[in-house]
Amino acid sequence: MKTASVYSNAPELQVMQWFNTPEPITLSDLRGKVVVIEAFQMLCPGCVSHGLPQAMRISETFSQDDVVVIGLHTVFEHHSAMQPHALEAFLHEYRIKFPVGVDQPSEMDGMALPNTMQTYQLRGTPSLLVIDRMGRQRLNLFGQENDMKLAASISKLIYEAPVAEETSNVRSIAGQVCTPIGCTN
Amino acid sequence: MKTASVYSNAPELQVMQWFNTPEPITLSDLRGKVVVIEAFQMLCPGCVSHGLPQAMRISETFSQDDVVVIGLHTVFEHHSAMQPHALEAFLHEYRIKFPVGVDQPSEMDGMALPNTMQTYQLRGTPSLLVIDRMGRQRLNLFGQENDMKLAASISKLIYEAPVAEETSNVRSIAGQVCTPIGCTN
Amino acid sequence: MKTASVYSNAPELQVMQWFNTPEPITLSDLRGKVVVIEAFQMLCPGCVSHGLPQAMRISETFSQDDVVVIGLHTVFEHHSAMQPHALEAFLHEYRIKFPVGVDQPSEMDGMALPNTMQTYQLRGTPSLLVIDRMGRQRLNLFGQENDMKLAASISKLIYEAPVAEETSNVRSIAGQVCTPIGCTN
Amino acid sequence: MKTASVYSNAPELQVMQWFNTPEPITLSDLRGKVVVIEAFQMLCPGCVSHGLPQAMRISETFSQDDVVVIGLHTVFEHHSAMQPHALEAFLHEYRIKFPVGVDQPSEMDGMALPNTMQTYQLRGTPSLLVIDRMGRQRLNLFGQENDMKLAASISKLIYEAPVAEETSNVRSIAGQVCTPIGCTN
Repeated sequence: MKTASVYSNAPELQVMQWFNTPEPITLSDLRGKVVVIEAFQMLCPGCVSHGLPQAMRISETFSQDDVVVIGLHTVFEHHSAMQPHALEAFLHEYRIKFPVGVDQPSEMDGMALPNTMQTYQLRGTPSLLVIDRMGRQRLNLFGQENDMKLAASISKLIYEAPVAEETSNVRSIAGQVCTPIGCTN
Repeated sequence: MKTASVYSNAPELQVMQWFNTPEPITLSDLRGKVVVIEAFQMLCPGCVSHGLPQAMRISETFSQDDVVVIGLHTVFEHHSAMQPHALEAFLHEYRIKFPVGVDQPSEMDGMALPNTMQTYQLRGTPSLLVIDRMGRQRLNLFGQENDMKLAASISKLIYEAPVAEETSNVRSIAGQVCTPIGCTN
Repeated sequence: MKTASVYSNAPELQVMQWFNTPEPITLSDLRGKVVVIEAFQMLCPGCVSHGLPQAMRISETFSQDDVVVIGLHTVFEHHSAMQPHALEAFLHEYRIKFPVGVDQPSEMDGMALPNTMQTYQLRGTPSLLVIDRMGRQRLNLFGQENDMKLAASISKLIYEAPVAEETSNVRSIAGQVCTPIGCTN
Repeated sequence: MKTASVYSNAPELQVMQWFNTPEPITLSDLRGKVVVIEAFQMLCPGCVSHGLPQAMRISETFSQDDVVVIGLHTVFEHHSAMQPHALEAFLHEYRIKFPVGVDQPSEMDGMALPNTMQTYQLRGTPSLLVIDRMGRQRLNLFGQENDMKLAASISKLIYEAPVAEETSNVRSIAGQVCTPIGCTN
């Protein structure tokens, strides 16, 4: 007899402000599509050189009927330099057209990790989350994955039969990253 | 009522000599898998910088149960410099591990296009052919496609239902290429 | 008889705040050395991907006895997103170690071009100014120059006899740039 | 009192065949200019991706009155695949326009290192030799140097006073190389 999936349900995003979308976005509204979430900070070098350009290529490659790309601005350092008005200028200059949400700062302490980052236990930026058509978290990558492998992973979720069950896939990959204890060279 | 597929059957490769495989390879033996054929010349700059490294990434990304990568050395210029013994040295130096076949030279005239290149109407090198699990030709790309789009296209063929029908997909893409009238800068 | 040089004297920088230096820097203090000034904005994509990494390579290549590299933050758009506190975070994250001055905003109008940018008639960012050992402006490049040519140009000024006279060298080069009317893709 | 230079005189090249030049080239004919010699093999990956494109940039950057760039085909492996007729096709396809000499094979044994490679004690390919205006060997680099540093080094020799004396500069640099015991990945 078939048991419940081993995948956990992807918790809802906690966003204080959206850019590039007329309406707030919820994961429940996107049920039925594969959702790719690029978690970044505008002053994270690895996000600017690798993560965000890759997210743009994902957005340009797959049909919006199959894959939706969302940016999540998970600020955990230099808060005053990465306020929403600065993010807006950044998105304009870097021609980022997909929806971007600002991760809700923790109420406890302005310096703590923002809420969605905590909920998803993100290790830093850039991180890439992939959620399947049933709303389950399937990938949680920290660092840099190459395009070939990432497109293959996303495609697998596009085409899989709806009741697939596999082990979770949380990985760290080599590359320039920022964590709460600093950025790597 | 369902009619026959619009895709043409991929004709058999005409190979005079194989490297990196203990046995000659036929497309009919590979029925059931997606086959990616990288048509190249060892002295074609766009093949060395783009096509062959990309073919290696395809080979490393997908399971051999799903995708088989084959090189095809389609020499149509500088024949004396690209004989099989030179190709063997090239494959060694560039660490190319997937099977590579030497396209059979035309019997009519040593300077003519080799046989498989003629059969598939390849326009030059690098060209990338993709054959589906049913042995039908599905992609015939000339030039350079990016990894994200190519992995998405290959994945579609891995996961598609067996009776899919679509229009053929023969394309030219920007990039450094060699044709029978010369190589571009 | 030798006449006066055709080169104009490089006007003094007008800087409201310095980073990465214990003392304010003046061009007159640097007389005797070649001075390279990288004019940038922290949200200018071509500055982040090309101009600033190149300035770092210049700084690492030449002896400080011969060449001094200075950054100049010439903000002419998105002012609120590129205030000095944000620049400080940016310099930290991108490991920029050479001295960086914030170009003095125009007193007339906060939205006008900053003072040094006006004085040097910079067309946008990234711009690279090179000043010779005698304090004369010798290069004013807008856009992207390759490393080989730039190192050759700087070296020429290092080794030239002190009374050299040539025509001025103000050039635009292809590449991703920002101007007061917007950034190019 | 000034003693003789510590630099050794650069021995004459031993070339069996020239391409891209109407006349054989001798170092003694080039006395008065800085000479850059790119030692390569046409099937050496690091030469194709790095060494030769860099030599082309050197050739395009400096005046021929100051710097002459020469290629030297120092074949020490896969001899049958890199004969002069194959090299000619390679030079054509890769648009290499500067003069290229084929290093004279050893008379003792076809498999030994070629003569100029032995004379200069080259460790493998790509190697870059730089000879000053007085005909003395000043740089012998094995591997990959960046453009900024290399242009600075060459420029120093262009502008130096004729009696300069320094210690020799034989270096290995990181990067993909081929040596008589094999090529690195």
